[in-house]
Amino acid sequence: MEEGEEVKLLGAWMSPFVNRVKWVLKLKGIRYEYLEQDLVNKSPLLLTSNPVYKRVPVLIHNGKPISESLFIIEYLDDTWKNNPILPQDPYQRAKARFWANFIEEKFSQVMRKVLSLEGEKQKKEVENANEALEILEGELKGKKFFGGDQTIGLVDIVLGVLPTWIGVIEEVACVKVFDPIKYPSLAKWMEDFLELPVIKESLPDKDKLLAYVHKIRIYMLTLAATK
Amino acid sequence: MEEGEEVKLLGAWMSPFVNRVKWVLKLKGIRYEYLEQDLVNKSPLLLTSNPVYKRVPVLIHNGKPISESLFIIEYLDDTWKNNPILPQDPYQRAKARFWANFIEEKFSQVMRKVLSLEGEKQKKEVENANEALEILEGELKGKKFFGGDQTIGLVDIVLGVLPTWIGVIEEVACVKVFDPIKYPSLAKWMEDFLELPVIKESLPDKDKLLAYVHKIRIYMLTLAATK
Repeated sequence: MEEGEEVKLLGAWMSPFVNRVKWVLKLKGIRYEYLEQDLVNKSPLLLTSNPVYKRVPVLIHNGKPISESLFIIEYLDDTWKNNPILPQDPYQRAKARFWANFIEEKFSQVMRKVLSLEGEKQKKEVENANEALEILEGELKGKKFFGGDQTIGLVDIVLGVLPTWIGVIEEVACVKVFDPIKYPSLAKWMEDFLELPVIKESLPDKDKLLAYVHKIRIYMLTLAATK
Repeated sequence: MEEGEEVKLLGAWMSPFVNRVKWVLKLKGIRYEYLEQDLVNKSPLLLTSNPVYKRVPVLIHNGKPISESLFIIEYLDDTWKNNPILPQDPYQRAKARFWANFIEEKFSQVMRKVLSLEGEKQKKEVENANEALEILEGELKGKKFFGGDQTIGLVDIVLGVLPTWIGVIEEVACVKVFDPIKYPSLAKWMEDFLELPVIKESLPDKDKLLAYVHKIRIYMLTLAATK
């Protein structure tokens, strides 16, 4: 750990939002202490660090807590200038923020719905996810990574939820969302992304994730059926 | 206009999201051309500048379009360094982004629901809005503005939707959301905020806004009743 720098990450092993922060910490070579949180019986540290949302990830830097993965990433990038995650040019920065937010709203949140629904409603959300994928395919075309040909950036890190979660959601929710034939650039991007050592080294265990997501789906369907 | 700088803002007079961008342009003394958009028959300029969301505001700086009000504000702040809107300190920046996003998700989006609902469902959203107001009251306490005692910043600008819209939504949707007795700090903040010349000079006309919001509510209720 850097002299005098104390970095802690409150996380949960299955959270894609925590995963992104882990990747950025690794990309920047920041040493940190990882504190796995019990999300059922929340620790006093989590409750006092993120009193508004009471959720992970929370980064605690020299005693100061920061919540929400995208703002943690911006904070890390503002504080540790090596291996920048956002572009330096203001226009490119704005574009990166736009696409990161697009993935969050139009893909990640939609995939959460795919997982919690059945039948026609689920079909509609699968269509919505595909609309987002089509737009992302067009945005990526001709580039290796969203961040450029050499290196990944904010958009790649946020879209990291695609290669790590899509197969699990498809299997558990019995749907096909991602067709590599329809999205050749994204399919190639997924391969290249997963090949990066920094990503490969901190992926959740597939079988453990499958079991977890399966439980989540049953819980969500039960909840919907008792409303 | 600065030598060689061409700034255009595609907007709509009633949009609180456009309003925030106008305030920032004014605070920074940036000269720009305002282009009011027809949101029913969208112009080719709007459609090509924001092909993903097809909505305002869009800022076009020297031909390059930027969408989404929060990212436009960050872009303006990255590009014109005078009268900073975000704090310079990375930790304070992270906090400002956190609160701006909180207001967006937990207040603005909730107020939109208050406007589109009736009865018990509306009551629930009024409660949600009050939960957010309570948290914001606690965050503001002891300060004149969220940005500090002297000047407004990102959080004030995003919460600008409160003094400009709350009365209109309350009147049109026949509800009481904001009680100045319960939120004395926010009530004082509203007064101080509206007194700022830069804000006062670019507020939408109250009567025109009332008539517009009234139409929107009827449209939303009709839509809900025909689903």
